[in-house]
This record gives sequence, C-alpha cells and structure tokens, in this order.
Amino acid sequence: MAQLDAILAHIDSELEGSLERLFQLLRIKSISADSAYADDCRAAARWCADTLSAMGIEAAVRDTIGLPMVVGHYRGAGESAPHVLFYGHYDVQPVDPLELWTRDPFDPAIVEVDGEKRILARGAADDKGQLMTFFEAARAWLNVEGRLPVNLTVLLEGEEESSSPSMVPFLTENADELKADVALVCDTNMWDRRTPAVATMLRGLVYDEVIVEAASHDLHSGLYGSAARNPIHVLADILSGLHDSDGRITIPGFYDGVAEPTAEQRALWQALDFDSAAFLGDVGLSIPAGEAGYSVLEHIWARPTAEVNGVVGGYAGEGAKTVIPAEASAKVSFRLVGEQDPDRVRDGFRNFVKDRLPGDCRVRFIDHGGDRAISQPSDGPWIRTAQQALSDEWGCEAALIGMGGSIPIVTQFKHMLGMDSLLIGFGHADDRVHSPNEKYNLDSYHRGTRSWARVLAALGA
Amino acid sequence: MAQLDAILAHIDSELEGSLERLFQLLRIKSISADSAYADDCRAAARWCADTLSAMGIEAAVRDTIGLPMVVGHYRGAGESAPHVLFYGHYDVQPVDPLELWTRDPFDPAIVEVDGEKRILARGAADDKGQLMTFFEAARAWLNVEGRLPVNLTVLLEGEEESSSPSMVPFLTENADELKADVALVCDTNMWDRRTPAVATMLRGLVYDEVIVEAASHDLHSGLYGSAARNPIHVLADILSGLHDSDGRITIPGFYDGVAEPTAEQRALWQALDFDSAAFLGDVGLSIPAGEAGYSVLEHIWARPTAEVNGVVGGYAGEGAKTVIPAEASAKVSFRLVGEQDPDRVRDGFRNFVKDRLPGDCRVRFIDHGGDRAISQPSDGPWIRTAQQALSDEWGCEAALIGMGGSIPIVTQFKHMLGMDSLLIGFGHADDRVHSPNEKYNLDSYHRGTRSWARVLAALGA
Repeated sequence: MAQLDAILAHIDSELEGSLERLFQLLRIKSISADSAYADDCRAAARWCADTLSAMGIEAAVRDTIGLPMVVGHYRGAGESAPHVLFYGHYDVQPVDPLELWTRDPFDPAIVEVDGEKRILARGAADDKGQLMTFFEAARAWLNVEGRLPVNLTVLLEGEEESSSPSMVPFLTENADELKADVALVCDTNMWDRRTPAVATMLRGLVYDEVIVEAASHDLHSGLYGSAARNPIHVLADILSGLHDSDGRITIPGFYDGVAEPTAEQRALWQALDFDSAAFLGDVGLSIPAGEAGYSVLEHIWARPTAEVNGVVGGYAGEGAKTVIPAEASAKVSFRLVGEQDPDRVRDGFRNFVKDRLPGDCRVRFIDHGGDRAISQPSDGPWIRTAQQALSDEWGCEAALIGMGGSIPIVTQFKHMLGMDSLLIGFGHADDRVHSPNEKYNLDSYHRGTRSWARVLAALGA
Repeated sequence: MAQLDAILAHIDSELEGSLERLFQLLRIKSISADSAYADDCRAAARWCADTLSAMGIEAAVRDTIGLPMVVGHYRGAGESAPHVLFYGHYDVQPVDPLELWTRDPFDPAIVEVDGEKRILARGAADDKGQLMTFFEAARAWLNVEGRLPVNLTVLLEGEEESSSPSMVPFLTENADELKADVALVCDTNMWDRRTPAVATMLRGLVYDEVIVEAASHDLHSGLYGSAARNPIHVLADILSGLHDSDGRITIPGFYDGVAEPTAEQRALWQALDFDSAAFLGDVGLSIPAGEAGYSVLEHIWARPTAEVNGVVGGYAGEGAKTVIPAEASAKVSFRLVGEQDPDRVRDGFRNFVKDRLPGDCRVRFIDHGGDRAISQPSDGPWIRTAQQALSDEWGCEAALIGMGGSIPIVTQFKHMLGMDSLLIGFGHADDRVHSPNEKYNLDSYHRGTRSWARVLAALGA
C-alpha cells in the first residue's frame, strides 16, 4: 500500500498542474453537432493523443467517416496482467443559449457556490472532466511507478453528442484491436455527494412507431362525424389499453424474462435511502405513477415500462378545424429489464395493436431500434474489486446502482466485443450537462482521480 | 299560373343572356383570402350592386372593417306581402394549384362531360352560380310582371371564404334594416341529380381544447419512465373513455335534449334510399363507426357526436426521442342536435375530464366557441310552401334533409335577427367547390333559376 499511498500523494500535490491540463482541454471548442467546429474537434482529438503519448500511452488520431477517434495502447503490465479498455469522448454539446451562461463556456474557472468549489465550463462534467480523472490517475501511476498495473487500451470518440454515427463501423473494423477483458466507462454519476457508485444495471429499449389509417383522406367532421372511423379514437383506445388500472402493462407475454428483484437487491436498495419525494418533487410531481407494489427506485431501475413518447393526429394549429384525419400516429418506447427480448416485445406490441384494430383501419409500423437490458451480477469479480477500491477512497460503501436509461456504447461493447463494462463516474445530478453553466465539482475531479488510481491498483492486484 | 308560365318561358328564352351575365361575374377574380385581389373583390361587389339596381332592386356597396357588403332593397310588393332576405356571397376560394385546372379558372366556359353540360370556373357553384339563379329569377319576374311578389332585402358578403370577420359587426349595426320574415340561403345542394331539397336540420357545434399537464418540464423516459406521470397516457385514457363499446358518448347528461327521430322522419329518410355504402366507399371506408342502432343518415343528420379533431404531445419529428412530455393536448368537437345546450355540453365535457384526472396533473381548456343546432319543423309554412314549389319544378317530391355541419350565417340570422332560413340550393356533391375544376351543372343553373321563380311566386301567393 505504500506504493498506492505515494501515487495518491502525488495526485494531491500535482492538483494544480492537473487542473491546468484539464483547462487546456476545456478551452478547445469541440462542439461535434456544429460543423463550424470540426477543426476544434480535431484539435481536441490531437490534444488527447499527444497527451497520452507524452505519458507513455502510445496514441494516435484515427480517421472515421465522421470525426476521428483517438486510440491508445499500453502493454507494459505484462502478459498476466488484466487488459482494460477505457472509453470517453472529447466532444461537447453546443452552448446555446449563450446568454444564460454566467461566463464564457470555453474559459474555464473554479467558482465557489454554496461552499462547494466547482469547475465551470462546457464539458466540465460531460465528458472532459470525467475522462481527465482517468488520464490523471494513469499519469500519477506512470510518474511515480513508471508503469501501469494493467494493460490499457484507450478509446475516445468525438461524436458522442451527435449520436455516434461512426462508432459501430469503427468497432466492427477494429474489433480485435479494441477487445479487452473489461471496459471502463466514465460518464456516470455518484449516488450522492458522499457515496460513489458502480452502475450494474441498464435498462434496454424498444422504440416503435405506430400509424393508424382509416379514410382515404381527411374528412369534414360535420359531414362525416360519427359515421366515419376516427383514427385518433382508435389510437387512443389502443394506447389507453397498454396499462391496466394497476399500471401493469397488458401486452401478452410482455413480462417474460422479467425477474422480481431479489431479497438481497431489495435490501441493498432499501439501504440507499432513496428520497423518492425529492426525486419527483424536483420535476413538479408527488405521486409515483408506475406499477402498484413497487418503489420508485424499482420503477426506474428494475421494472420495464411502456411510454408513449409522442402522439400526433389531425389539426395541431391554433384555433379550431373540424377535421377527421385520415391517420394518427404515436411513438411508443419500452424500457426492458432482465432477459426481455426486444424482438418479442416489439412483436407483442404490434400484435396487441393489430388485435385491437377495428375493421376499415390499417396500421403501419416504423422500427426505431432496440437493445436488450444490461445486467451484471453484483458479485462479479470486476464489480466487487472496483466497489472496494471506491469504498476505500470515499470512506463508505460504494453503491451498486441501476440506471433507467441505456448507454449505447455499453450495449455495443457487450454485443459487438463480448465485453462487460464497469460504469464508474463522479458526476452529480445537478451538473447541468447539456445546459448552460455546466459544472463539475472540484471534489469530484480530485477524488475521482484518486479513485481511478485505486481502481487501477485493485484491478491489477 | 299563366303569369308564372310566362315568367318561366322568359327564363328559358333568356338563358343565353343570363349565362353571359353569370360569366361577367365569374370573370372577376374576387379571391377574398388574398389581399392582392382586394380590388377585384370590390369590383365584384360593385357589379352585384349595379346589376341589382339596374333590375329595380336599389342596392349599394356598404363598407365594413373588411371587404364590403352589398345590400339591396325592394319594397314594391306592398305592406301585406311577405318580406324575405336573400343571402349570398360574391367572393371565391383561391385557385391553387393552378396547374390542376383544365382551363383558366377565371375564363368560364360550358363543357360537356358524361353527357352533362357544366359551367366550369372558380365560383361557378360556390357561390356565384347559385346566387345568380336567384338574381335571374328576380329579373324574370321584374321583366315580365314589372314587380316581385315579395318584398326583398338582398345581403351579399365578400368574406365568406375567409371566416366572415365583418358579418357579426355588420348584422349588429344593421339589425333593423336587415330583419325580414325569413331568409333565403342558397349555398346548399340538391339531394341527387333529379331531386331538389330543402335543408331543415343543421347540427350545432361545441369546440373545446384540453391541455393536460404533469411534470414541470419534459423528462427523459429512461430516467423517469413509469415513475413519472405521462400526460399522453392520461389524455389517451380520457379520450378513449368518451365512447362506450356501442359508440355511445359517456359524458353524463350529454344526451339531454336529444330526441329520437320521429316515425315520420324515419319513414321520410328511409324513402330517400340513401346509399350509405357509396357515401362511405367514396372515402375508402365500409363500416359505419357511429352508435349502434342508427343508420348512417341518422348518424350524420340526427345524432350528436364527440370527435377528436386533433391530438398532439411529445416528440413529433422523425426518428426517436425518449421524452415524457410535460403536457399533451387535444381538440375535441361535439356536433349537437335538437335542444342540446352548448354551455351544458362544454361543462359536461370539462367535468368528465376533471373527474378522470389523476393526482399530480393539471388541466387547462381553451374555448373555441359553440352554437346550438338548427332544426325547423318540416311542416312549418315556409318550408311546406318552398317544398311544393320545388316539387312542381322538378317533377318529384323535394326532399327535406338534414346537414351534418353548421352554416354560421344561418345561426347568426336565427340568434341575432330571430329569423329562420330556407336553405335551398342546386349544387351537387361532385361540384368540386374549393378545388380545381369547380363546376356547376347547366341544368342546376337553368332549373335552379326556374325553381326560384316558382318559390318567389309561392311565397308571395
């Protein structure tokens, strides 16, 4: 442990230099969604590759059909050491509306708010601050020990904020080069200000669009009203029927593959003392809307959903128009858990719709994709190891948490490279990622760097 | 009858001159919706006023806040004769898309199609052709007899195709001048090619907009899915609940004031031999969607409706967005019949919504207006008189029909001037009003003129 103590002490004493390197990266306007910033994005990729290479992790900027990837390799830990892949992204969200920022989003600074020191800049949390916690942990290892305890591949993309169009082709072409024992993915949050977390469950997703058609063209509701089938009514009946009065989804077979939380999981989640009143209260709500018999945490981590994300039909302008539309449509998504099969869920939904379609109506569907849930046993070796390292740093047991959404890269690593991910990050819910005045707590940055140094040590032990 | 025979013979022999006058009016590009044609609209008003005055019906162009009215008066029938108000409009719809017209829409001509002679031009049916049948009937009376059998007020507007913004103020300011014993309104259709019709029933309307709100802002469906109330689900449940499985509207008290069709009405409608299969088949449908136990004709003439005319919530763009929207809204209209009270129907709907609103949701409504149904007893004296005159001209009993929609001017005459309307017109469903290649059958024009000459005679007898 003397070795690790020296590394942690180095991180503490080098904090100022570490922040200066972070600020260099934050000053680069790498907005991937706006092609006017393509050169800035390339500059950010170059900066990352140069920084890694200078540390001893040989890295290169790699062209794609879009913005480049950065790939680095370190093989100095020897054959018997584990091989981990670290993933992050160097691009950031646009900064509009600029007038809501309290300072230039690309002129980072540390500001003190409510007794907390915060790094204020676009990308401070998402994802430059988070990825630099890993870079700086690796730098401390290399500076103090002259080596890393694990073999390492680094993969950084520049299109994470633009739907990652180049990622699947790049993973396909470079699967052998990128495959490792486990991936480290850094853009997640802590459980709370004091409690670090490893995310072990991500819900899957099926997204489908349904278009119900009736008459051959829009009709006048005076001339045809009540005689002609109204597709909005048909759609409302179908959507209304998706849940029963207990909030349970009524599609036959929908719950196949959904397991009840185990007693151990329930006990762990209970212990997290989740403030569901605050969670809902923050968005103006007070009554959990999901299935009866489950807690809010279970609703968003461990239960599947059917949510209508959009509905449109007929006249949507101002005022009144007496139309019976020829069609009405809805976008419907399902969050999946456990072993639910996306194809079977989609088929089940489509059959549910067809079974409820009155005569004279036709239905079309548009497939917007789907992915299985990710669920890793909480007693898996990587997770236990990382959890212990985080607990050591923060002085309390790291939480094993679920996430209601999905992270595409985690699914891609799982299904394209057969690789599990360790999801560890030090963000907070109030970091305002994607919004004006994005921030990353200085404590997250400093102790996040220390945390990664410990995780690397534990993985390599 | 010798007198009437001479007038009808005059109409027959003067048909060519009558058509030339109609064509003069059709050549004026009086498109009210496009301010580039404001001068043309004024020219059409001037033409109508001059034409009436030259016939002996003293008429003037009267300014409004928008396009002018034309008002004419004839008082030569004596104190004991009835006083009728004739209503029509001199404005026409835009002609786009121009490339779909087989000839210049403002260069009228008679073309022969399927053995029928048709007047082809914008406004041929709606409403210049129809209003000229009345002008020419009055002209024939004045030419042959030197007088009209009734006292007459003529009211022509120039904004009928643009929502008539000036009508209510004009009626308010000139109520005493315009009030007559009965109004003649000419923009309706015959029952079929051989059977004339008087419309005696128009459905009323209540139009309301409902906005259901839940969270304070749009939420990510991964993070909040199933825990947070989705207003699209709430709205779908409410809209789905508006009808029971028999198509009956479930709002408490909704059917107050709705009478079942009488045995006599049912027998009359049965005799019309309505082709409901063709009516639905023309718009791609085959199965009547309305209340069980009623015919299609009853659905559209004699039964009230609840129709969702528009619905919108969440993401409506291409592709997928995983949002739980903060609000969802629908535009809902109710066609009213009999003595249904618009205010009570609106209140009933709003209470129905509020009763079904889960906790955490709020609801707002936007009132888009409402009007009672118009229903005139089929044995009223004006209707019987007009029906007989039409039957005499066409050689078969004129139908007494309902109309599923409303005609605002009829409601305004009823409620602002206390005046019933006789709805008589000679259009056909295939006249393509508002569309390219609008037409009016020459037979409609010629025998329509003869019909009005007979109706005037009968009203004045």
